[in-house]
Amino acid sequence: MSAHPRLSLNQATVKRASLAEALEACQAAGIPALGTWREPVQDLGLAEAERMIADSGLRVSTHCRAGFFTLPEGEQRRASIEDNKVAIEETARIAAAGAPGSRAVLVLVAGGLPGDSRDLAGARGRVADALEELAPVAADAGVTLAIEPLHPMYVTDRAVVSTLGQALDLAAPFDPAVVGATVDTFHIFWDPEVVAQIERAGREGRIASYQVCDWKTPLPADVLLSRHHTGDGVIDFGPLTAAVEAAGYTGDVEVEIFNEDIWAAPYAAVARRTAEAFSAAVAPHLA
Amino acid sequence: MSAHPRLSLNQATVKRASLAEALEACQAAGIPALGTWREPVQDLGLAEAERMIADSGLRVSTHCRAGFFTLPEGEQRRASIEDNKVAIEETARIAAAGAPGSRAVLVLVAGGLPGDSRDLAGARGRVADALEELAPVAADAGVTLAIEPLHPMYVTDRAVVSTLGQALDLAAPFDPAVVGATVDTFHIFWDPEVVAQIERAGREGRIASYQVCDWKTPLPADVLLSRHHTGDGVIDFGPLTAAVEAAGYTGDVEVEIFNEDIWAAPYAAVARRTAEAFSAAVAPHLA
Repeated sequence: MSAHPRLSLNQATVKRASLAEALEACQAAGIPALGTWREPVQDLGLAEAERMIADSGLRVSTHCRAGFFTLPEGEQRRASIEDNKVAIEETARIAAAGAPGSRAVLVLVAGGLPGDSRDLAGARGRVADALEELAPVAADAGVTLAIEPLHPMYVTDRAVVSTLGQALDLAAPFDPAVVGATVDTFHIFWDPEVVAQIERAGREGRIASYQVCDWKTPLPADVLLSRHHTGDGVIDFGPLTAAVEAAGYTGDVEVEIFNEDIWAAPYAAVARRTAEAFSAAVAPHLA
Repeated sequence: MSAHPRLSLNQATVKRASLAEALEACQAAGIPALGTWREPVQDLGLAEAERMIADSGLRVSTHCRAGFFTLPEGEQRRASIEDNKVAIEETARIAAAGAPGSRAVLVLVAGGLPGDSRDLAGARGRVADALEELAPVAADAGVTLAIEPLHPMYVTDRAVVSTLGQALDLAAPFDPAVVGATVDTFHIFWDPEVVAQIERAGREGRIASYQVCDWKTPLPADVLLSRHHTGDGVIDFGPLTAAVEAAGYTGDVEVEIFNEDIWAAPYAAVARRTAEAFSAAVAPHLA
């Protein structure tokens, strides 16, 4: 089988697969790249994961994910910052182990309101502070930090960064090679400003990753798991993908789906379906 | 009992109450105003509803709700536009029946994507078209149309207007006395631009209604019913209410809650709890 040459399977789409199983599923479906997640890499140990990725011949498109740095100063915040530094190092090594075209991009999810706090502005300020602390570390490691705006329904419990414009504002003080943004259709398709902000992200050189999956209602009981194969929902991938292309993004396009039914399916079947859905719904809009 | 002098109970908070029961619940709790809904008014007939509101001595703060005009041209769209005209007439008459200080404000929910459409931009364009058609009718009736941005989790199935900025852009071509916006904390508190857009709404004279209720996670299985009494969730009513006040809004502040548990409680108890929660969480931020 062969899939689109720019398709990457984000490992969250086969959440319960080991790294070996995820790589095999990609190979069986002809998918040339994987977006790795930290847990399955750590389950193996970094050295073994590097070896396995190198042997696979696959590219690495991103490493997911770090962030979660909205806590106020203190022991827990320090632990989070240190963990982000570990993730930066992982990202550099994993990407170096991947096939040519691999990209050392670490996806960052900001984190929600800590404890009983109602202070969104304060939490957002602490994201900016964390980036200031981590950017030099990422620069030294040759890693791009990719701030991911998450859908506003996750604003209080998962990510206080809710729009691409806000992510770009947070990235603005830094070198675009060091701090960029993740453009994920699911999270930002609703935004009346989305095309204008993708254009801006392109002008500013900040599209570090393009991720796709679909939106469909009614949302399931756990709204975190409300993501679908491309084409199974109501997102129009045409204008969004065209805008990302026009903005100059030439990297892999990741399919990242959180969905209990998809997680329960055999990994190879999920990878195959991912490739087919991507070919139908997204690939026609790629150059 | 007495409640804050600017508190209004939106009738959706006691969804299963008749108009008479809703008015009684307000009176028992000392709440001086009601935001009416169309269905209980229509259950009685407009003339009887007018009489009942006049007898109550309560103010009317808004009439809820019309809109739902994202359909493409055709019979169903015409029916929706005609229904909006009926709602405009209802609004004028209901407000005239209310005590001094009543406001003829019709809340508009835009509607979602029609049928199998994926065309958000097209649907948004049809909202603009509908406003153009309805604004002269509203102007003749002395009614303000209050476009309500809804949380982006409702964008495809309920309201393609998702931010206050977008609502203000839609309102911009019209006289602010005729087309304004509803500022509802639940729907827009997450927006990094929210305070700036409230300031803009004030400068442009477009705050037609201020509604409050709270946000809490996890969201319930039906995300439409995820609203809570003020203070029971994580919204910081201070900065939002201060911004609305500073923007020059002097009208009633409505509590509008969709919540199955609250709907199942006795109306008088809900009204009392609404007044108490409002006094604690919102009133301190009012001038």
